[in-house]
Amino acid sequence: MKLLEDKILNEGKVLDGGILKVDGFLNHRLDVALIGELGADIAREFVGCGATLIMTVESSGISIAFAAGEKLRLPVLVAKKHKSLNISDGVYTAPVFSFTHKTQNTVVVSKEYLSAGDKVLIVDDFLASGNAALGLLSLVEQAGATTVGFVAAIEKEEQGGRALIEQKGVKVYSLARIKELRAGEIKFN
Amino acid sequence: MKLLEDKILNEGKVLDGGILKVDGFLNHRLDVALIGELGADIAREFVGCGATLIMTVESSGISIAFAAGEKLRLPVLVAKKHKSLNISDGVYTAPVFSFTHKTQNTVVVSKEYLSAGDKVLIVDDFLASGNAALGLLSLVEQAGATTVGFVAAIEKEEQGGRALIEQKGVKVYSLARIKELRAGEIKFN
Repeated sequence: MKLLEDKILNEGKVLDGGILKVDGFLNHRLDVALIGELGADIAREFVGCGATLIMTVESSGISIAFAAGEKLRLPVLVAKKHKSLNISDGVYTAPVFSFTHKTQNTVVVSKEYLSAGDKVLIVDDFLASGNAALGLLSLVEQAGATTVGFVAAIEKEEQGGRALIEQKGVKVYSLARIKELRAGEIKFN
Repeated sequence: MKLLEDKILNEGKVLDGGILKVDGFLNHRLDVALIGELGADIAREFVGCGATLIMTVESSGISIAFAAGEKLRLPVLVAKKHKSLNISDGVYTAPVFSFTHKTQNTVVVSKEYLSAGDKVLIVDDFLASGNAALGLLSLVEQAGATTVGFVAAIEKEEQGGRALIEQKGVKVYSLARIKELRAGEIKFN
């Protein structure tokens, strides 16, 4: 999606360790018009896929998932991120390791809001190693529900997450697909 | 706002300690159409107020602030919540005590995205004791910016937060204003 690629080229910052900082428009300060366009693009790609629910994880995925939900007229389930595994009954949980923060988290959704009949479109801000994605896919599997697609606003191809998701038979769609990420040089696929 | 009041009466759950659980439509599972209406209502109230920026705090305020930002065509700055005070330079920080979780957090925004000229409309999901609100107001003050209003989707009047904000000369607007919160009995103002 050219709009997002241009924004990344103009305003994204590449930090050490292959981290792409998009604080100015996607994470910390939200460019509402841009994110609305991301939602519209996701809706165009997945209209008619039969999704009953969009799922994301707090907190950077929320606005993108919400924008997609508006266009597809679907509710959004926000998985919570916890530091501990000490969590009440009535929830599905999955471990997620963050390479960026070098921390182990647990993602959690209430069983009340994810049912066996659900067809889930997962939307997140980044796809990198695929660790967070696998955690979210696991929540859907535990509920006996189906994942109809995984969407990332930004994919960092070099970290290989796409293959892990596709191995599970899930379609991956990213709005900006970064092939090479170096300071001063970002190449898209 | 009758739409939100009805939703609270029909789907909200009152837990011990005066906690109102709105997981099914506002916090965990997002009712996208409802939240879009909240955004439209906020926009009607604050159109022409001169706001340059909407500010909220992760993660439950994000979707409401985003919906308001869409209608008012304003960017949204999402204050981050940290457990520690050990935070890098280049940010404004304020302590916030959560009565619900009995924890001390720090709210943080980058100085890069909050400037002296900004007129800030703060949007959050709840107003209760006003502790979180005061933290966000402090961030605006530190930047030398102005707060043009504080919006809560749901206000729990009994906890007295409104007075603390109004004492600072800031207009408070809540979309559902709860006078009494008891299991089986919720009264609005």
